[in-house]
Amino acid sequence: MQKILDMLASVTPLDNDAMEAARTRQQELTKPAGSLGRLEEIAIQIAGITSQSKPTIERKAVIVMAGDHGVTAEGVSAYPSEVTPQMVYNFLRGGAAINALAKYAGASVIIVDIGVAADIAHPDLISRKVAYGTANMVKGAAMTREQMVEAISVGIDVFETQFEQGIDLVATGDMGIGNTTASSAIAAALLGKPVSLVTGRGTGIDDEQLVHKIEVIERAIEHNRPDPRDPFDVLMKVGGLEIAGLVGVIIAAAARRVPIVIDGLISGAAALLAVEMKPAIRDYLLAGHSSVERGHRLMLEHMQLAPLLDLKLRLGEGTGAVLAMSIIEAALRAHNEMATFAEAGVSENI
Amino acid sequence: MQKILDMLASVTPLDNDAMEAARTRQQELTKPAGSLGRLEEIAIQIAGITSQSKPTIERKAVIVMAGDHGVTAEGVSAYPSEVTPQMVYNFLRGGAAINALAKYAGASVIIVDIGVAADIAHPDLISRKVAYGTANMVKGAAMTREQMVEAISVGIDVFETQFEQGIDLVATGDMGIGNTTASSAIAAALLGKPVSLVTGRGTGIDDEQLVHKIEVIERAIEHNRPDPRDPFDVLMKVGGLEIAGLVGVIIAAAARRVPIVIDGLISGAAALLAVEMKPAIRDYLLAGHSSVERGHRLMLEHMQLAPLLDLKLRLGEGTGAVLAMSIIEAALRAHNEMATFAEAGVSENI
Repeated sequence: MQKILDMLASVTPLDNDAMEAARTRQQELTKPAGSLGRLEEIAIQIAGITSQSKPTIERKAVIVMAGDHGVTAEGVSAYPSEVTPQMVYNFLRGGAAINALAKYAGASVIIVDIGVAADIAHPDLISRKVAYGTANMVKGAAMTREQMVEAISVGIDVFETQFEQGIDLVATGDMGIGNTTASSAIAAALLGKPVSLVTGRGTGIDDEQLVHKIEVIERAIEHNRPDPRDPFDVLMKVGGLEIAGLVGVIIAAAARRVPIVIDGLISGAAALLAVEMKPAIRDYLLAGHSSVERGHRLMLEHMQLAPLLDLKLRLGEGTGAVLAMSIIEAALRAHNEMATFAEAGVSENI
Repeated sequence: MQKILDMLASVTPLDNDAMEAARTRQQELTKPAGSLGRLEEIAIQIAGITSQSKPTIERKAVIVMAGDHGVTAEGVSAYPSEVTPQMVYNFLRGGAAINALAKYAGASVIIVDIGVAADIAHPDLISRKVAYGTANMVKGAAMTREQMVEAISVGIDVFETQFEQGIDLVATGDMGIGNTTASSAIAAALLGKPVSLVTGRGTGIDDEQLVHKIEVIERAIEHNRPDPRDPFDVLMKVGGLEIAGLVGVIIAAAARRVPIVIDGLISGAAALLAVEMKPAIRDYLLAGHSSVERGHRLMLEHMQLAPLLDLKLRLGEGTGAVLAMSIIEAALRAHNEMATFAEAGVSENI
């Protein structure tokens, strides 16, 4: 736990000088001031994160944490838990959406078994299983405090290994049948919103199943009484191992001053927890997209993060985050490569 | 004119068989049905355009039409007309936003002088000047019927040259001080909306200048009385040479069954005109983004096109369209490269 607290303490505010230099450069580029909208904001934010007025992105990766959820015993998902290991193998063989989209974006796909309820073996898998899934949160805490701390530490370790290899942009991804249930429970607990407002259809349940899912989450919160002022308590009681792992990734990346693109509901829950642990982390985050999942938008609004994309995605895996990487990289290319008014001999406005 | 009418007549509806095959494939890929949202729609639409159930994109280009506007004499822009040739040179030297973004997207940048009010010479410039800018539309038609027909033909010719080289995705871009004034006039005329609802700040005019710009457009419409049922009449009287050129590009690309990504207000005006000429063209269009410019969203709504991005851009040049190319290409990669449930041995939903 001390490692986690030390890492949280090491997260500092963005570099104002680098942001100011980037802002000045944006004013001098051959375009009406402000006309590149959010692309300008991205360049300025990443300048502040990296302390470079002209930041570049060489290596990118999406870290996909996979874990199972005991709450699936309550029948909250359209798919059985067996799909978690099946999809992990699909990732490892390159057949999933995240593989195709990451390949297009030029990002490495890092797959971590942090809590899948089955044995998985593959040379490209990072095997750091904390448990064979969480416990059923309707009947008690989803994990022990020790499991939670270990899972966050796994996330930190995985990011640190990437950092040692050099990484300029990291995306968060997830796999785990039942994990929208845990993420909605986290949102309800931390945001103080009714469960019905933050709970969606996940992989595609019908109206009746949605009513049941909401009721299951309400029972889990009623039973566990997570403390909304203590994000660790919320994570332990109604979270997930892969969510804890993503919390670790986010904390470590912010501590190392690497920009983080978050994906949908599950990544959003992890980001929300990390920001509650240390508000300065918020400025290191870019919201890749707005998910179809109810609750995601409320999470982003709470963190005051504006999503870059809204493509009606609800897949997870890091897909929306990796799609947004192209926008982020394009923003930096424009920032770095455009000519200034002086260089191009173009008249400024009258 | 006959060439234009023949080309319009040759535009046919999308290929339903190819769309159905693509739709079936999307259902079989290893993800919950519909969970890739707009990415799935893009793949299905492009299957229909290209008659290929698994379409691929090899070569992409953005065609940037540059032209000047006589109406700038009324003081409607924050920049002088001299900026048009200066920016064209900036494009040709690779220093503008469109160069950086197109380079990142892997798209060729095709620059066409279709009506710049200055002589420009450069080996990479396509010189097809129809006139040294349009006439001041407050005092009469912006162009003659002959000029309009020639400008549309230039657009057709430029696209046809690209088509001969092989092109799988085309984006439309523009440069021309004063061209938001012409585009807003086209929107007001074709959509039957008050000028104040479809007119924005262009390159960045203040409140007082905006009131003046609206009044100038109202006078131009009052003086010319463009016929809202005749898009050619609207284009000739209150349009622009670069807008006519883009109309030609759009018509030719639809006739050749090549998907077209449109950019902001100016491309939107060209698309609106083309769709009024031939409604079937609408299905060949992808709206790259939603511009900050008032009027653009109304144009897209009229055509029932949902923008792929909303990044608060208001630059033009094709920047938003080229950014969206990454999303479109990623959509096709996922469509083509993902494994099916059967291939991956993943259980389908319960």
